[in-house]
Parts: sequence; C-alpha cells; structure tokens
Amino acid sequence: MKSSRLRHTPEKIFRPLGFSFAAASAGIKASGRPDLALAEITDGATAAALFTTNRVVAAPVEVGRASLAALVSAAERVRAVVVNSGNANCATGRPGMRDCQSVCREAARLLDARPAEIFPSSTGTIGVRLPAEKILAKLPELIAARSASERSVCAFSRAIMTTDTRPKIASARFWITPGKRAEGVAKIVGKSVTRPVTILGIAKGAGMIHPQLATMLVYLFTDVKAGAGELRRMLREACDTSLNCISIDGDTSTNDTVLLLASGASGVGIRDAEVRKKFVSSLTAVCSSLAEQIVSDGEGVRHVIRLQVAQARSRDEALVVARTIAHSLLTKTAWAGADPNWGRILAAVGRSGVEIDAARLQIFIGGQKVCRGGVALEFDERRAHLDLTRAVCDVRVELGRGRAGVQFLTTDLTAEYVRINADYST
Amino acid sequence: MKSSRLRHTPEKIFRPLGFSFAAASAGIKASGRPDLALAEITDGATAAALFTTNRVVAAPVEVGRASLAALVSAAERVRAVVVNSGNANCATGRPGMRDCQSVCREAARLLDARPAEIFPSSTGTIGVRLPAEKILAKLPELIAARSASERSVCAFSRAIMTTDTRPKIASARFWITPGKRAEGVAKIVGKSVTRPVTILGIAKGAGMIHPQLATMLVYLFTDVKAGAGELRRMLREACDTSLNCISIDGDTSTNDTVLLLASGASGVGIRDAEVRKKFVSSLTAVCSSLAEQIVSDGEGVRHVIRLQVAQARSRDEALVVARTIAHSLLTKTAWAGADPNWGRILAAVGRSGVEIDAARLQIFIGGQKVCRGGVALEFDERRAHLDLTRAVCDVRVELGRGRAGVQFLTTDLTAEYVRINADYST
Repeated sequence: MKSSRLRHTPEKIFRPLGFSFAAASAGIKASGRPDLALAEITDGATAAALFTTNRVVAAPVEVGRASLAALVSAAERVRAVVVNSGNANCATGRPGMRDCQSVCREAARLLDARPAEIFPSSTGTIGVRLPAEKILAKLPELIAARSASERSVCAFSRAIMTTDTRPKIASARFWITPGKRAEGVAKIVGKSVTRPVTILGIAKGAGMIHPQLATMLVYLFTDVKAGAGELRRMLREACDTSLNCISIDGDTSTNDTVLLLASGASGVGIRDAEVRKKFVSSLTAVCSSLAEQIVSDGEGVRHVIRLQVAQARSRDEALVVARTIAHSLLTKTAWAGADPNWGRILAAVGRSGVEIDAARLQIFIGGQKVCRGGVALEFDERRAHLDLTRAVCDVRVELGRGRAGVQFLTTDLTAEYVRINADYST
Repeated sequence: MKSSRLRHTPEKIFRPLGFSFAAASAGIKASGRPDLALAEITDGATAAALFTTNRVVAAPVEVGRASLAALVSAAERVRAVVVNSGNANCATGRPGMRDCQSVCREAARLLDARPAEIFPSSTGTIGVRLPAEKILAKLPELIAARSASERSVCAFSRAIMTTDTRPKIASARFWITPGKRAEGVAKIVGKSVTRPVTILGIAKGAGMIHPQLATMLVYLFTDVKAGAGELRRMLREACDTSLNCISIDGDTSTNDTVLLLASGASGVGIRDAEVRKKFVSSLTAVCSSLAEQIVSDGEGVRHVIRLQVAQARSRDEALVVARTIAHSLLTKTAWAGADPNWGRILAAVGRSGVEIDAARLQIFIGGQKVCRGGVALEFDERRAHLDLTRAVCDVRVELGRGRAGVQFLTTDLTAEYVRINADYST
C-alpha cells in the first residue's frame, strides 16, 4: 500500500471518478461574476450531510435535508448538486421554498432524474427572494457545460464564492493493493492491481464580509464505495477534529452545509478496516486543509491562532474552554495587536463555565510558558509579540484537570473586520 | 409620603448619612492620577455583595468575600472600603493575597478596626504585583482627608476610574412619613416627622479599554436600616433587571464587584412593606442609571442598543436570546454601521439554543417591524438607518412562545473598540 497524498492548491487537483462539474453566471450577483455551480454524478452517489445547528434555516437546507432523508431511506442516490451564490434564500418563507423546489424540479427534468435526487444549496443575502427564473434560464447551459476536467472543478470552486478572496480546494488520494484483508477490492481477480481512491473537497468560507452574507459550504466528492450510514459516521469523525473546530466570529450561519458524496466508481469498498482507516484519515486531512483555508481567509484576518486546550477532563470540556477563548473580544483584539496578553486568556478560561482551578492553569504563547499556576511568569515579551505577528501562532492552555484536549483554529479580530461588517450603504 | 427622586449627575448628589469619602494619588497609575479611594462608616454598615462569576478571581475578591462572610455570620459591620485603581491584583498568587491583606490590616489599624471590617477592591492590570507599599504609605493621608462632602464623593468616583472617560454617579432619595404601618420608624414619638432615605451609587465601567484592564465596580451606599440577609435579597432584585442586563463585549472580569452598604443612620428600617418597596424601587433606579452610564461609556461605543426580547416562555430564556444577540459580532458590527440588518439578528436568535420557531418570530428596529414570521417585510430602510444612528436605539424581538421578557442594554462594536484593545506597545 503506497502512502497517501494531500494537495491544497487549485492546481494539480486529484479528481475522483464519476463526477463532472460546471459553473455559469446567472446574474444573481450584481457583479456579474459566476454564481451558479453544478456537480453531477451520472451513476449517482450515496450521500451524507451535516447541516447548520441554527434553528433558523434557509429553504435549500430544509429541502436538501428532506430530500436526503427520503433518498437514504429508499437506498437511492444523489444525481446532482446545484449551488447558487449571491442569495441565501433564507427568511423568504413559503415562496422561498417554492423557488428552491422549482430549481430542483427543473434540474431533475433536464438530467432525467427525480427532484429529490437534486441537492440544492444557496449562499448570499438573507431576506431577499431568490431570482429562481434566472437560475432556471441558465440551467440548460450549465448542465451542457459539465465535464470532469480540472478546469471545471476550479470553475465550481469560484462560482460558490461570496466574499472569499480565493477558492478553497483540497484533495487527497491513497492507493489500495488488494490483499486478503482488503475485502472491498477482493473481487479484482487474477493479479494484484493497485487502485486509487480519491477525495476532493471544495469549500466556501465562513468569513462573513458583506452585510447579510454568511455561510460555510463544504462539498466532499469521493469515488469510494460506501453506504449512507457508513458515510455519515466517517463524515462526523472527520469533521469533529477539523471543520467543527474552527471559529472566526462565533456566528453560525442559517445555511451551513457539509455534504459528502460517494460515487463508488473507484471500485474500492470501505468495509475493510484498513481501507476505512485510510479513508477517514484522508477525509480528515482534506477537511482540516479546508478548515485552515476557511479560517485564514476570514474577513479582516491577519493572524490565525492554533489554540490547544489540554489536560481537560473530556474533549467536550476542552471545546467549551477553546470556544470561550476563541469568542472573547478581548483575546481576539489582543491577538490583532500581537499582544501577549495572557491575562485575557486567563479571564476567558475563568468564565467558560468549566470548574477550573486557577492554581493549576498554565498558558503558553508561541512555545513560551507565560503563566504557571494562574500566576504571572517572567517571559520574553518581545519574542512572544514576534510569535504573535506570524501568520499562524500557537497558543496552549493546560487546565490541569485530566488528559483530554482539542485543537481549535481561530483568528484575531481586526478593525478591518469591523469596517467590512459595519459598512452600510443606503 | 413624598415621591422619590433620582439624580444622575455628579452635581447635587444626594448623600446618605453615616458615610465619609476620600481619594488620593498613591502612584499606582503611571499617569499620577488619583488611584486610591476610601469610603468610611464610623458606626459601621451592614453589607451585601455580588461578585464576579468568573472562576479566576483577583485577591481582593477572595479576601472581600471571606471577610464579608465572617462579618455576616458574626452580625458585625463593615467599617471601610479601600479601593485602588491601576492594578487588579489578579493572577498574583499568594504574594497578591498577602499584599491585599496587608492593606486591610493597615487600614484597620489606622481606623481602630479589625482587618475583616475593611473591604478591599482593586481594578487595573492583571498579573502584576500590587505595589502595596505605595498604598500603605498613602493610607494615613487618605484616612485623614475623609469627609461627607459632595467634593469627597466626586473625588472617590474619579479615583476608582481606569479607562472610564467620566465618573459614574447616581443617587436617589425618598421620604417616609411614619404611619401605623411604618413599623421601622414607629419609634419616632410625638409628632409625624418626614424622614429621608438616601441611596448613593458610584461605579466604574465594564468598558475595557487598555490591555489587561477590565472590571465593573459598583458601590451602593445607603442610610436605611437593614440586616445583611435582607440587603442581599434587595440587591439581587435590583441588579437582576439592571446591572445583570448589560453587556459591552461579553467578557466577565476577574474583579467585578457590587457592594451594598447600609449605615442605618436614617433611622428608617426596612421591615415595613411600603418602605421596602420604595427602597427596592429606588435602588433599582440607581442601579439602572449606573448600568446605562457604564454601557454608554464603553470603549469605542457610538450607539447603545436597548434590546427587548419579548414573548419568551421564561425570563431566563429571554436572557439567553438577548445575550446571544448582544454578543454576536455580526449584529454588533451592523449596529456600528447603523445598518438595519435584521437577518443577522434572526440568525443570532436561531443559534441561541432556545427552540424558537422562525415562523413565529417578529423583529422591530426603532419602532418599525422589519421581519414578521421570520420573513422579510417591506420597511423604510432609510428611517431604520436614521434610528440606528441615534445615541440609543430600540431593537425588539418577539419570540411568539410566551409572556416573559427582558430588557437588555448593549452596544455596537466599532473599529475604535478594536483599535483601543489591540493597541500594543512594547
């Protein structure tokens, strides 16, 4: 078995078998930039998805969630994903639901599929009717243009952008040499064939730049063979340590969606424990790369903070502390100024709700211990300041309560963020 | 019974009987500004206090909490409050505790009291040793200077400031004409005498301007006669709807303290239901005024938002929603731009954890309904924008779940806030 590889750049993308992509400009964005994207799977794909936990959800989240549930219970497959940017189709009531359904219906008609087999996504302004007629008019051209080329993948990644400054793509491939234990590929007869399994991830950012624009969309395409239940478990595993461990501003969008689609076209099944392990690790690597790309492209972000909370009693407890630190305006603004102000971190830990004992707390900034037992330590402030000026800086908090921990990616809060988000034009 | 009166300004302050005040410059602040304050009660005062819920607490909070507990259980009284600004005496470990105790001990010696009768407070930088010797050297002068004058009250209010741009004082007085029911004043024999009861509140802000400066301190002085248990209940009642319903940046300080001291020198007791009601209402008015002064003096604050969350199942539920809205970076930055972006409010309500039904939500900005049933309404955007440019703007969210509600004061988040808090000088 060869080692697996991970690619972050938009060039030389590993592309999974069975998928084709396309993009178009439907005129939803006032700028005229591409705002409509398609991923199509000729033979269909099994699917699993994670949706926003926000109680206010956009029409496509309601429709997509219901369609997926129906497909899974009938053991049927997703035929295509249709994404528009520029409009979130949220807070649009019944008309918004009908708009979303009409897009799915028309795409299904053109692809000779059923509406439930089309998975919809929207991202953009909240509270404005989706210009469905513009999408309907563009669908034939979009569908006709689909291809498996790298160029089409890139076009998809750009068309789903709203306020992202760059597309976000990560891909991974690993190789399976069928052996006795590789049950999933045991049907390859005669000689030992090395077969690749590929995962391609495309995302748009959680950075919320323009007023009313806010959403993280992540699409994961793979050619592994796996049932919906298994996909769901693996997706959760991969996201728990990656996409669920990031925060830019603490706001959860009404449209957040992570979708994993498996075409099965590699011929490699997931039942073998080693294949499964390899797959989950590659999927996690792709999700982690996308998570980093999303965070570092957050609006106004100058520094990414790789926050480690260690010595917690449980992972959940560590997450609570990490989130409290990551959401504190005082820690975030200190990081914007590259200020090694550990007192603010200490205060955030103290109000996290976790019953910490200050006398057991330790805090590290960029490798230096700056606080021991909740008390100030002598440290090289100049060096800590320099560490915090780097693109990525490590901050570590040890709670002295147990052995669990978490790594969490977050950002500073700059005046630029406020300017971008406060900018109002009548 | 005459009607009660409330005063917000530093001039014409109602002053309760039994208290004297003083301030001095001990050299803790590099600026040389006053940084040491004293309130003394010759005959002692009963006391109740609310402390920060942060698990990391400063030395004076630990010492003050223990002293109060000891005094209350022994039915003894507080003789003085000694406050320093410029240093929080937090994250200073055992030496910090000893520093705090030495200040209490010396003040007690000079006032012929016991150390537990001296209530300490500190506010300022975290993680730096308290220069106790500077305080000890200044205490004799401070104590000698005490007086009941308005000037001394103002000096106290300025000496506890850190990054506040103005002192925060509110005072209220009400009059009691003893009748049959006024049990507390029934001992006044012979003729009907109208007697005043006075409450004086002095605060410093929760606005956190300089790195590592962070604390809300509130001192409430009254000449009513009441036991510690009764004071505690009334303090909670008054704070629940005032000081506990404000948020600037969501961070809770390690030193936050609200202290209520009752000298009893008015001769009016609290047992009569009407006196109690009048007292609680005046105390609430003083706390509400201080809350407003604190919020509007928050750093970088341009607009105060008077947020009302209505139609909740319980007050706690309304508070959860209010806090989520008040802490959302997206809503706060929208307010900074006077942007009537109700989509962000809707999204914040949705992720609050309360099981709201979006179809029952209504949102009002400055009196206009902007969202009904979770869906966009036509409204006068220009007018909403203008409303949001005012110093105080009302934002109302109706959850459609019940009859409980809460009013919550919060602020916008400006680029100025970030600049102030990110400003780092090596």
